[in-house]
Amino acid sequence: MKRRTLALRISHSAFRTPHSALLLSAFCLLLLFLPARAAEKADLLVTGGTVLTMDPARRVIPDGAVAIGGGRILAVGPRAEIERRFTAGQKIDAAGHAVLPGLVNTHGHAPMTLFRGLADDLRLQEWLEKYIFPAEARNVDADFARWGTRLAALEMIRGGTTTFADMYYFEDVVAEATKEAGLRGVLGETILDFPAPDNKTVPAALAYTEKFLARWKNDPLIVPAVAPHSAYTCSADTLKRARELATRFGAPLIIHLSETETENNQLREREGVSPTAYLDRMGLLSPRTLAAHVIWVSPDDIARLARNRTAVAHCPSSNMKLASGVAPVDKMLAAGVAVGLGTDGAASNNDLDMFEEMDLAAKLAKVHSGDPRALPARRVLEMATIGGARALGLELQIGSLEAGKRADLITVSLRSPHAVPMYNLESHLVYALKASDVDDVIVEGRVLMRSRRILTLKAAEILSQAERLAQQVRRSLK
Amino acid sequence: MKRRTLALRISHSAFRTPHSALLLSAFCLLLLFLPARAAEKADLLVTGGTVLTMDPARRVIPDGAVAIGGGRILAVGPRAEIERRFTAGQKIDAAGHAVLPGLVNTHGHAPMTLFRGLADDLRLQEWLEKYIFPAEARNVDADFARWGTRLAALEMIRGGTTTFADMYYFEDVVAEATKEAGLRGVLGETILDFPAPDNKTVPAALAYTEKFLARWKNDPLIVPAVAPHSAYTCSADTLKRARELATRFGAPLIIHLSETETENNQLREREGVSPTAYLDRMGLLSPRTLAAHVIWVSPDDIARLARNRTAVAHCPSSNMKLASGVAPVDKMLAAGVAVGLGTDGAASNNDLDMFEEMDLAAKLAKVHSGDPRALPARRVLEMATIGGARALGLELQIGSLEAGKRADLITVSLRSPHAVPMYNLESHLVYALKASDVDDVIVEGRVLMRSRRILTLKAAEILSQAERLAQQVRRSLK
Repeated sequence: MKRRTLALRISHSAFRTPHSALLLSAFCLLLLFLPARAAEKADLLVTGGTVLTMDPARRVIPDGAVAIGGGRILAVGPRAEIERRFTAGQKIDAAGHAVLPGLVNTHGHAPMTLFRGLADDLRLQEWLEKYIFPAEARNVDADFARWGTRLAALEMIRGGTTTFADMYYFEDVVAEATKEAGLRGVLGETILDFPAPDNKTVPAALAYTEKFLARWKNDPLIVPAVAPHSAYTCSADTLKRARELATRFGAPLIIHLSETETENNQLREREGVSPTAYLDRMGLLSPRTLAAHVIWVSPDDIARLARNRTAVAHCPSSNMKLASGVAPVDKMLAAGVAVGLGTDGAASNNDLDMFEEMDLAAKLAKVHSGDPRALPARRVLEMATIGGARALGLELQIGSLEAGKRADLITVSLRSPHAVPMYNLESHLVYALKASDVDDVIVEGRVLMRSRRILTLKAAEILSQAERLAQQVRRSLK
Repeated sequence: MKRRTLALRISHSAFRTPHSALLLSAFCLLLLFLPARAAEKADLLVTGGTVLTMDPARRVIPDGAVAIGGGRILAVGPRAEIERRFTAGQKIDAAGHAVLPGLVNTHGHAPMTLFRGLADDLRLQEWLEKYIFPAEARNVDADFARWGTRLAALEMIRGGTTTFADMYYFEDVVAEATKEAGLRGVLGETILDFPAPDNKTVPAALAYTEKFLARWKNDPLIVPAVAPHSAYTCSADTLKRARELATRFGAPLIIHLSETETENNQLREREGVSPTAYLDRMGLLSPRTLAAHVIWVSPDDIARLARNRTAVAHCPSSNMKLASGVAPVDKMLAAGVAVGLGTDGAASNNDLDMFEEMDLAAKLAKVHSGDPRALPARRVLEMATIGGARALGLELQIGSLEAGKRADLITVSLRSPHAVPMYNLESHLVYALKASDVDDVIVEGRVLMRSRRILTLKAAEILSQAERLAQQVRRSLK
């Protein structure tokens, strides 16, 4: 814009002589057009990294760049081209880094970071009844949910997660803390037939959810969801009402499904069918449904999921640690089911590290099938990005670096000793690189972390509040 | 010592008057005795951390300290007590950290860091024959072994590994680079019936090994070993000669054992027995033998290992990625077999991260057995420290923090978001903490890394040399 003004001034004064006027007019045309094209404005340029777009062609651009404006990706391409086209006030030099879509964590319970390592290596029943349930009943309130979510957000940002799906209690507070951190969330208040720390009855939980859906429905970062806990903790009536809410608001529905063999046995005894067939019968399998875990499923169950275009959140770390079993990820993907990766809550993981989930998903599938070709790195990387976005119904907004999409991206250093040498970037991201290699995190065009410095959260305060709440948890279990 | 000299000087001049002489004598006695007791000299004090000793009582000392002198641990105890007893020129403030024995990586091939991610997600045969074997034949020389080991050392130090077992080629160079990095190594030149990059015949490899054993036998950091590759790549004669060398030098013998089902089938066809029974028959199972992988073993095989006090290196990452199978770690431990953890080479992992191996070992055992109580955190932590030391025959020297042992220890930050809150340190080390949380690394009393700054290796040069060699590898496979 400045250059245009300058050009007009020159041409104005130069029209005194006809010959020079002609020359200057030509010059002005050059100034008017070339620089005008060069001066497309962006808010932020991320330049010089190896850009792994995860677009339909799976384009990888060495020495690439991403232009960001108004929270969206304006363009992705070779650095020289992007730098010619755009100017921007802010620039991130990503040389020596991979630049890729932010990671999508498709299942978790954010505030449970405050129960991280509270109890481990126990039978599920003992773990839940002696530790997790009493700890939740005696400690979880709005304050707990807020600091727990902040701690989760801090860890997720540091590990390159930009979007996460969540179901817990005080979900309004979870949403507020998520928005404040600058993360994107698909969040739902847990609905179940037992008194929860916040809502003591199903009608209360449904009313809470309805208000929650209305409050957050137009938020750029928060996608409000409906989250009935599972087929074994919700009555048919609860499930039906949850489904109706989700349908009315066009909202995602998040539910646990076939995490344990016990759950399958219970449902079969109660309903005569598998949990998947039961949810199908109840009308709960839809393209907006995201089912977490999905371990104990038959070929018929998988066909039902595929037919209903219901998505799955695979949580290898939690499934291994709780000895729940191994989800048939390969078979679900082959059937066309959208499968994302999830950490589950920190109590059963014990962290929120999507790099670890990628590594585990690939390795678990191999050792379980006896075939080292099972779930190759590229497939796993898809699950952590565009596949996860698809699982959340957000594949048109996020999950790949393409012009027009929301600007959710991360840079990952390729200069650590464990990142050297590099023969294949996809393999590196899955098998060698770590959460600690993430340097910059951008969500909706906003920089949340720059060179590992968190910009949206007060880390020291969060850690000390977490310690305060942990002391309370310890006392409550004595 | 300085204070004593001063005291003697004062007393000498003071004996001019009898009264003051008496007073001064008393004063001198004070100076001679009290400060002398307080002034026990150490080279280095590590103070203020939570000291996880891994001693027989598994003592954990909050606000503890370790005094180090002459490469050994002088004392371990509460900080106040240690600070009263010792003075030291160098001090590491470990507040907010766990202080524990350095991690012991019981199986690997250090120079293979340079093949990290060269090829993945392939059938074993294709991976070996199309990539690894040709890449080794065309690239591995002394220069490759040196830079590859330096890269491995850099990564291992950054991840808290202080001792590693290794079998590769040009092992003399591996030993030199290990010593230069300041790491402790149990190292053996691979002996096998095929031409290797260095030794083209078995006699050459045996002669190399004999010289290697003689050269390194009294080194404080390097334990030279004999390393026949496996029962399926070594003839009976080769194995016999390797055994004789190990016996003659009292050296450890490192060998791969029952890594794949194919190997078991081959041995059964050739020898009529399992690989373990075959090695037993050949006299290769002894208390000095360390067998790597040990996946396809029967109860009878496990009994043989236990009877011979043969140790095992469990490599969960590699076993999962190559789909080799799941080692019966629980059963081996129950039978009294010493089981350590190993990363294997970076080509099949793809990193050298013992924190990841701990997490994987615990989780794999659980999901495989269907029992979340399998291989609890404490057991895994033992495998990574004192158990690994026992597997290497070094349990009297390293693996725990006890007075008289070599001073191999690390500090691990407890202040990262994923380390907060902390209910149980052992659980945290296995399930939540990461290689990147390691701040200080000390081996034989020498500080190799201080606040994540490597003191013994030139990181930038190593990374650029690794890239140079990787380019050569890429060209060689075209």
